[in-house]
Amino acid sequence: MKTAVLGHGTVGSGVCEILLDRKKDVSIAAGKEIELGPVLDIRDFDNIPYSDRFTKDFSAVLADPEVGIVAEAMGGIEPAFSYLKAALESGKSVVTSNKELVAEKGAELLSIARAHNANFLFEASVGGGIPLMRPLYSAMSAAGITEMAGILNGTTNYILTKMFSFGADYSDALADAQKLGYAERDPSADVLGWDACRKIAILSSLVWKKTLRPDEIPTEGITKITVKDVSAAEKCGFSIKLLARAKRLENGKIFAKVSPALVKTGSPLSTVSDVYNAVLVRAETTGEVLFYGRGAGKMPTASAVVSDIIECAKAKDNIENVYWENGAQSVFAGKDSVPEKYFIRTEGDVDHVLFGLEKLCENVFMTKPLTESEFSVLKEKINEHGSLLSKIPLFE
Amino acid sequence: MKTAVLGHGTVGSGVCEILLDRKKDVSIAAGKEIELGPVLDIRDFDNIPYSDRFTKDFSAVLADPEVGIVAEAMGGIEPAFSYLKAALESGKSVVTSNKELVAEKGAELLSIARAHNANFLFEASVGGGIPLMRPLYSAMSAAGITEMAGILNGTTNYILTKMFSFGADYSDALADAQKLGYAERDPSADVLGWDACRKIAILSSLVWKKTLRPDEIPTEGITKITVKDVSAAEKCGFSIKLLARAKRLENGKIFAKVSPALVKTGSPLSTVSDVYNAVLVRAETTGEVLFYGRGAGKMPTASAVVSDIIECAKAKDNIENVYWENGAQSVFAGKDSVPEKYFIRTEGDVDHVLFGLEKLCENVFMTKPLTESEFSVLKEKINEHGSLLSKIPLFE
Repeated sequence: MKTAVLGHGTVGSGVCEILLDRKKDVSIAAGKEIELGPVLDIRDFDNIPYSDRFTKDFSAVLADPEVGIVAEAMGGIEPAFSYLKAALESGKSVVTSNKELVAEKGAELLSIARAHNANFLFEASVGGGIPLMRPLYSAMSAAGITEMAGILNGTTNYILTKMFSFGADYSDALADAQKLGYAERDPSADVLGWDACRKIAILSSLVWKKTLRPDEIPTEGITKITVKDVSAAEKCGFSIKLLARAKRLENGKIFAKVSPALVKTGSPLSTVSDVYNAVLVRAETTGEVLFYGRGAGKMPTASAVVSDIIECAKAKDNIENVYWENGAQSVFAGKDSVPEKYFIRTEGDVDHVLFGLEKLCENVFMTKPLTESEFSVLKEKINEHGSLLSKIPLFE
Repeated sequence: MKTAVLGHGTVGSGVCEILLDRKKDVSIAAGKEIELGPVLDIRDFDNIPYSDRFTKDFSAVLADPEVGIVAEAMGGIEPAFSYLKAALESGKSVVTSNKELVAEKGAELLSIARAHNANFLFEASVGGGIPLMRPLYSAMSAAGITEMAGILNGTTNYILTKMFSFGADYSDALADAQKLGYAERDPSADVLGWDACRKIAILSSLVWKKTLRPDEIPTEGITKITVKDVSAAEKCGFSIKLLARAKRLENGKIFAKVSPALVKTGSPLSTVSDVYNAVLVRAETTGEVLFYGRGAGKMPTASAVVSDIIECAKAKDNIENVYWENGAQSVFAGKDSVPEKYFIRTEGDVDHVLFGLEKLCENVFMTKPLTESEFSVLKEKINEHGSLLSKIPLFE
């Protein structure tokens, strides 16, 4: 069976390399021969061993009856969406590393896949090389997952690790990440939390079977985190991580949030450093489970794409558990639905305002569980007598 | 489809509860109705809601055409082996939490399963509720796994955690674990490392497709670890964990070892505390991946059994990747095949003997990589001038 690869960038070229260099392993795992088919890219690649496979014409890929699987690694919504829709409609299975596309168009593509008895898989869109999606939709499908909390963005985790370990300023740590190629020249999608937001939207939709739209999720990045926050947290026994969280409430709605959050030093999430990712899953029957690994990078991400290619090759029909719907109503529970404890740094004469709260050290307190609205009231009081310098929710 | 449950102890009763209480979730995940069938136990259970399902006669279970899946949680080799062999030969699929059976008879049962187009799955035999087997044989099947290191025994990890966190003596920590029900009255299988040994034998066999026999694996428990070892390790930036390790060498042989080992403080394995388990997997394409969760306990283990029941119900044929063979030759590489660094504690005037080694603190050194035989030579030299108090390999 031939696999076409769309987009020959970092991930796409990694997929080609694995399909060529590990052809035997991949074919054994799939139970049938898996061959690299046409590779679509608008650029020319004349001097590589498989340059004869390149094409600029998607309709040729679509028309090729030997292509049973299409692996997309172009990124962005268009033309990826139109290409993948057409591939699924012609009965080809599709795998992708494109989290933007899955977060925005997942329900639609899954529905088209089902209608044509094909598969649409996207292991590589969240957590890079960590086998994550399959345990969630397969081994844990009846475990009663209630909550997920993930460190899903390697760039921000690298920056926070530098701030924590070396006392680096945010801007210095960002510059360092850019120098090493971990952060892009325009780092907005990472540092403002959008990337993590798309990923938790995908996980939530997959696990609870209804689309959670990224634009509904309150999302705060790490740009306001200072070295003072990091060192105050450390002094009190915590690390600061950019967490993407989702929790199923009793009414069936989903509370989700992307923000810096405190995790206890020594807890499994606290040791996830540098560009590593991890997802903590809580389920009724299994308790806490954590998946950890390289969340990005050419070979880990390409390896996840290839694991989906193998899954598609093995599947005899549409895999039923990989599915979610665009509900008529939003599943988002609202930002005020779950009260949280907040770690706050203050200045000024505010001790009497915060009387009764846990005082962690000078000017640093832990609030009782508060909703966002309740917190606003507290904030006003603090600012009457001093200043609220920062506020970071605690993940317990 | 009916699932028979063999053995109504901790795990078996958990399986019954999940199949009854979560029937809808389980059936949705399996894509067909999954019903609790006959429950086999030599004891009577008259006062529970499903007491009408009990039987003491395995041949009745075997003869029931509605029973498509048999879940075994009796433990031990016999009669479990004979029962499961008969079930597979009659075309029923079998799932088990019985690590002793899988480690000893895995290849044989897998071969019978294949011959009868049935499945033999054993997710619950290693790592309790952690989805571990399926990622290894499915998502990572072509990733080129080179090495695994696991904290696979909750009892010993609990004892080491107490020694580390509270400076408890080994015997006090063991007594505490027994009081809490984490350790059995005869704790040998846990504290001598046999349980972890069986589990790494299963993982190694599954991943590299040839039986690694537990009795070939050099296995050392935690009974010789003292508070002084633990605190010296901590002072030098390490934790001591009972690690079960396996590594594929270039000649295709497997080096495996169960022993206390040093892991760097702050590394993901170091934070695995109390009864939690974790497995670190290194693979060519994905780099490091870690799976973490509850390695034992009624519901986590039962949940893993049920995830296998779902997998059997969904599978249309024998799952090809779940397979290994009894090779004609042993795959074990020999205990001298991989040199390791050792953390050693000494007493007496031994500094001149250890000249050139890294001195971590007074009387504590880290050796260069040494094989077991090379270490014996060093040990003799040390004991000429003082004493070797302890020797613990470093896991890097």
